[in-house]
Amino acid sequence: MSSNSIGKIFNFTTWGESHGAAIGCVVDGVPSNISLCEKDLQKYLDKRSPGQSKYTTQRKEDDKVQILSGVFEGLTTGHPISLIIKNKDQRPKDYEKIKNVFRPGHADYTYWAKYGIRDYRGGGRSSARETAMRVAAGGIARKVLEYKIENTFEIIGALVQIGKSKIDYSKWNNSFIENNDFFCPDKDIVPTWKKMISDARKNGSSLGAIIEIRCKGIPVGLGEPVYDKLDADLAKAIMSINAVKGVEVGNGFSSVTESGISNIDEMRIENNKPKFLSNNNGGILGGITTGQDIVIRFCVKPTSSILSAKKTINTDLKEIEISTEGRHDPCVGIRAVPVGEAMMATTLADHCLRFY
Amino acid sequence: MSSNSIGKIFNFTTWGESHGAAIGCVVDGVPSNISLCEKDLQKYLDKRSPGQSKYTTQRKEDDKVQILSGVFEGLTTGHPISLIIKNKDQRPKDYEKIKNVFRPGHADYTYWAKYGIRDYRGGGRSSARETAMRVAAGGIARKVLEYKIENTFEIIGALVQIGKSKIDYSKWNNSFIENNDFFCPDKDIVPTWKKMISDARKNGSSLGAIIEIRCKGIPVGLGEPVYDKLDADLAKAIMSINAVKGVEVGNGFSSVTESGISNIDEMRIENNKPKFLSNNNGGILGGITTGQDIVIRFCVKPTSSILSAKKTINTDLKEIEISTEGRHDPCVGIRAVPVGEAMMATTLADHCLRFY
Amino acid sequence: MSSNSIGKIFNFTTWGESHGAAIGCVVDGVPSNISLCEKDLQKYLDKRSPGQSKYTTQRKEDDKVQILSGVFEGLTTGHPISLIIKNKDQRPKDYEKIKNVFRPGHADYTYWAKYGIRDYRGGGRSSARETAMRVAAGGIARKVLEYKIENTFEIIGALVQIGKSKIDYSKWNNSFIENNDFFCPDKDIVPTWKKMISDARKNGSSLGAIIEIRCKGIPVGLGEPVYDKLDADLAKAIMSINAVKGVEVGNGFSSVTESGISNIDEMRIENNKPKFLSNNNGGILGGITTGQDIVIRFCVKPTSSILSAKKTINTDLKEIEISTEGRHDPCVGIRAVPVGEAMMATTLADHCLRFY
Amino acid sequence: MSSNSIGKIFNFTTWGESHGAAIGCVVDGVPSNISLCEKDLQKYLDKRSPGQSKYTTQRKEDDKVQILSGVFEGLTTGHPISLIIKNKDQRPKDYEKIKNVFRPGHADYTYWAKYGIRDYRGGGRSSARETAMRVAAGGIARKVLEYKIENTFEIIGALVQIGKSKIDYSKWNNSFIENNDFFCPDKDIVPTWKKMISDARKNGSSLGAIIEIRCKGIPVGLGEPVYDKLDADLAKAIMSINAVKGVEVGNGFSSVTESGISNIDEMRIENNKPKFLSNNNGGILGGITTGQDIVIRFCVKPTSSILSAKKTINTDLKEIEISTEGRHDPCVGIRAVPVGEAMMATTLADHCLRFY
Repeated sequence: MSSNSIGKIFNFTTWGESHGAAIGCVVDGVPSNISLCEKDLQKYLDKRSPGQSKYTTQRKEDDKVQILSGVFEGLTTGHPISLIIKNKDQRPKDYEKIKNVFRPGHADYTYWAKYGIRDYRGGGRSSARETAMRVAAGGIARKVLEYKIENTFEIIGALVQIGKSKIDYSKWNNSFIENNDFFCPDKDIVPTWKKMISDARKNGSSLGAIIEIRCKGIPVGLGEPVYDKLDADLAKAIMSINAVKGVEVGNGFSSVTESGISNIDEMRIENNKPKFLSNNNGGILGGITTGQDIVIRFCVKPTSSILSAKKTINTDLKEIEISTEGRHDPCVGIRAVPVGEAMMATTLADHCLRFY
Repeated sequence: MSSNSIGKIFNFTTWGESHGAAIGCVVDGVPSNISLCEKDLQKYLDKRSPGQSKYTTQRKEDDKVQILSGVFEGLTTGHPISLIIKNKDQRPKDYEKIKNVFRPGHADYTYWAKYGIRDYRGGGRSSARETAMRVAAGGIARKVLEYKIENTFEIIGALVQIGKSKIDYSKWNNSFIENNDFFCPDKDIVPTWKKMISDARKNGSSLGAIIEIRCKGIPVGLGEPVYDKLDADLAKAIMSINAVKGVEVGNGFSSVTESGISNIDEMRIENNKPKFLSNNNGGILGGITTGQDIVIRFCVKPTSSILSAKKTINTDLKEIEISTEGRHDPCVGIRAVPVGEAMMATTLADHCLRFY
Repeated sequence: MSSNSIGKIFNFTTWGESHGAAIGCVVDGVPSNISLCEKDLQKYLDKRSPGQSKYTTQRKEDDKVQILSGVFEGLTTGHPISLIIKNKDQRPKDYEKIKNVFRPGHADYTYWAKYGIRDYRGGGRSSARETAMRVAAGGIARKVLEYKIENTFEIIGALVQIGKSKIDYSKWNNSFIENNDFFCPDKDIVPTWKKMISDARKNGSSLGAIIEIRCKGIPVGLGEPVYDKLDADLAKAIMSINAVKGVEVGNGFSSVTESGISNIDEMRIENNKPKFLSNNNGGILGGITTGQDIVIRFCVKPTSSILSAKKTINTDLKEIEISTEGRHDPCVGIRAVPVGEAMMATTLADHCLRFY
Repeated sequence: MSSNSIGKIFNFTTWGESHGAAIGCVVDGVPSNISLCEKDLQKYLDKRSPGQSKYTTQRKEDDKVQILSGVFEGLTTGHPISLIIKNKDQRPKDYEKIKNVFRPGHADYTYWAKYGIRDYRGGGRSSARETAMRVAAGGIARKVLEYKIENTFEIIGALVQIGKSKIDYSKWNNSFIENNDFFCPDKDIVPTWKKMISDARKNGSSLGAIIEIRCKGIPVGLGEPVYDKLDADLAKAIMSINAVKGVEVGNGFSSVTESGISNIDEMRIENNKPKFLSNNNGGILGGITTGQDIVIRFCVKPTSSILSAKKTINTDLKEIEISTEGRHDPCVGIRAVPVGEAMMATTLADHCLRFY
């Protein structure tokens, strides 16, 4: 029951600190005879990697993943798959200054209070660097889903809001998402977002964001009553991502302003198959998939690594001020898109293997 | 790894169908020598019980809980505590008509698709009747927290929004919450809510709601990195409640419209102890409690049991129409307040026992 | 992770004390649409029930099991099955005398030291009465195995040794097992065993025993590397039974006196299928079934409830002497046969559901 | 619920194949602020390492363990500890010949039947090479026990029988154990064992063995009713070791030939503390430690890697003959001693962290 593990059948355990020798994970519960190589995972890691554009942090991480076990002659063996990424960009000296300081808004103070020790180099275990291994595990999860599910399924993540600026859903364009620096589905909003990010960078501030993840092609019947409902497991998986403060399914918090009459997804028959006339429930009823698209949204708070000075304390319980120096990511929500996709993939793979 | 269980140290497993012989749960991981009797649990069950006011369903359930094991001479023994509530108000005939019909917005279709069989009487296992056992388990969780935590702690749930009508937070009054039919903290909004509920009942419709749960007195250090973050576990526990479609921590989705500068909870020292100048993070940083109040909110969709006719299908995949007859709860969000409190309590008790 | 639960997919949680209101269990992970009624379970409970013959305790327990949930119109629904047996033969006064005394060889002292409280009535939670629920869960497990496995499979338990008296394996007769008071497969040894038990009863002493459980018809491939090996899970399941002190698989401890040459189970092909020429490994290699019979043996120590006075201490840490009064079971190994069968069944059902 | 993991609080997950790039494990649940370095683990690995004497396999493995995470400035951080050992002695060509052959007595056939693929190089995941990581995890477990337990505790494993040759328990000498090639506590039997091993090697055969593990200094109260009894968890941990076919606690199978009168461990008071007059129960009653020495024994079958030709089949279901070539370990029981110690240590560390 490692708290560094998630999943019951398809499950993985991550390890490693931001500036330790390496980070890694062990993925277990993968069926045998699925083709798998490092390239299958690298493409997702590259999507998450910092330094991809001028809108994310300039910290350079190659993030080259290696498979150390569980694959033989290009096929999974049914045994644990060990993944490792060596940390290259280790600059512990950058962190000497904050050694005894609790960066406000980070886990520095709570880790120190809980453990009485903390690896202060870049947040150690609390760093979002850990999410690289989620993305790698998510790559394996997608292979499992492709192997198990007859339909072609697709997981699409997109940024739908930065600060107060929302996309226009009527302009949603799937193919545009991968062709801009924001995983944005609405071409027209991109210039606004560019300016917002530039301004935030200049002001030494940061911006929050909302990410939407959609999954197409999942059959009816995945998910378990009553505590392992698919939406409950998705909520946990998503809320465990760094900086996430909220998660919703289907029309989520908006359902509150609907009436029972308007909110129900009515059913009809089409081609001898059940069909829903709307998808307010986001593809899940009673914790079990309906066969419709699964739709979730989550928010990422504006990162606490900002250049402006803020009040805080240190390990001697003295009052001081701190500001982040150097590399700084004005909107971590952008890089949260592939991480959210990955958690959707791993949660679905887990429930898929429970189902079939 | 029963999907009908939740919790790692403090854990419980529920069983039973809405119209079966009984519902129950087994609570395990409770330390020995804690005083416990049925009254300790009954008070929370009474709070959730239907038929308490004219604003909830008129279905009459006594919900008298019995303790069958794990308590000896008034004290817990450290062994599993078995709880049972006998179902009295069984009227299977009420459900004959919908035997083959999938009520839209309910789990009827997904259960049938997954299991090939369903107990159609009132939703069977998918009924919110299951939440009675959560409330009972929550009562035990509170006793565990009282036993373990030196501070006096308090869990306070309140309804903060019905439909489009939000409370005025500046009028929040803890002592008023238990003195109205809505668990509402804002006296002035009650007349509006009364009218909204009456209207919804007349129109055969229903209303969504937002519930806020606050917990005071939890020390710094509860919660585990990285997948069993306290907020991740709370998100799962809350999202597993019937009809919940979203959950957020601290300022949640509102954080998106803050800047990094405004959103950070700065720290100072007061009486030689760390003190935060705000609580945007809702008492949790990096998945671990900060010592501030824990604050979460969740939404409950407008219930799908409505009197208006809606399009649906039956088990023969024929198109039909359906409307709920008889007893009907225009806003299930009201009764979700004690359930949310219970899930907060059980999740905290679990992390508390991991911590101490 | 209740320590009162066992199994990952097919799993169950037991509760209840020897002289509490009732004992029970919740069985989860059972597929839907399996026919199940109380009779299916009662036949196994009757086999374990005390008072069946003059060779077991005269304590009278009806052990009538009730199904409270998870079965609808004679079929399992896929939801948790709650079982309950009400305790009838409660005579707390019988136990007043030993209220403060630690019966040597029992868990009285360790429970008291661990929990600081104990239900002294008949051992409370540490009583072998708990095994009734294992037997009931085992009945459900057999239904699951019948449902999942194409072959006809069979679980046969037998007593193969009492004290120093072993059966002659060449006289093994399956059909005789159910037709004698000892679950003995060797007709000729029964008179000896009758005398041994009578003598032990007269002397106020007790006898140990060895039980063998065989399972026929399990296909190749059940079991998981490397910690959930089928034999590892069987060892845990069996060792968790009251009074068990050893467990072995195949030729077990006897393998030590074999050579590598003589001990290997060679393979041939028969009717185009793999066939083993011997079964020293007891049907399991590398933790996975070979398709041969699964064979395990376990020993039960002579019960510590004896009429002779023995030295012990009490809760005041005073030295005293104690002897068991009244009802007394000279060889608990007899009633351990259906319990061992049940643990074989539940462990196999669990691995069977992981496999298919 | 990875089947490659064991433990609930102190837990670890192993990965890696015998001839893959590396083997490793992730140990989680380790409290913070325990001093830990690679040397602490290396000493146990050296004990298990092949090539230590002419009585074990000549396969050369350096087994240099590296700590990749979870330790900062010499102290544990409370976060997962990742361990890795790079495989040096990879000679895949040695295994080309047996690529399609099922070595009888090994897991080759069952793995192939279960997974449809196997890493044939030295058994892949089924190889006893995996046990190196158990030994490393056991080293961390000992540090946890030292940190948590006030008493000085000690885990001592010894070989007590090879083939039919048992030690004389009256000659047991703890200090001799580490000073001979067999972990033998009885000096006088060593010459016999030397000859037996040499003969087995010459004959191309192998020998079984019995190992005894004793633990001194564990306080009363570790272990959990009823399925996670300490002896049940030990039985699982031990039975999961390669080639183990039986496990017993205290006087184990010998208890069967005792009477209830002779087998009871009577209690007295000494220096105001409870004291037992014997230890037939091996330090565990009702699954919970009594404060006495914990004593378990387990047997290891004669290894199936022998030079003599044996009948088997291949992946084409053709009948063939096979004999092991090259390096060969005539009695794997010797190297099982440190592995058994490690499983004792990890199981105790897990229960210790549940207790305190």
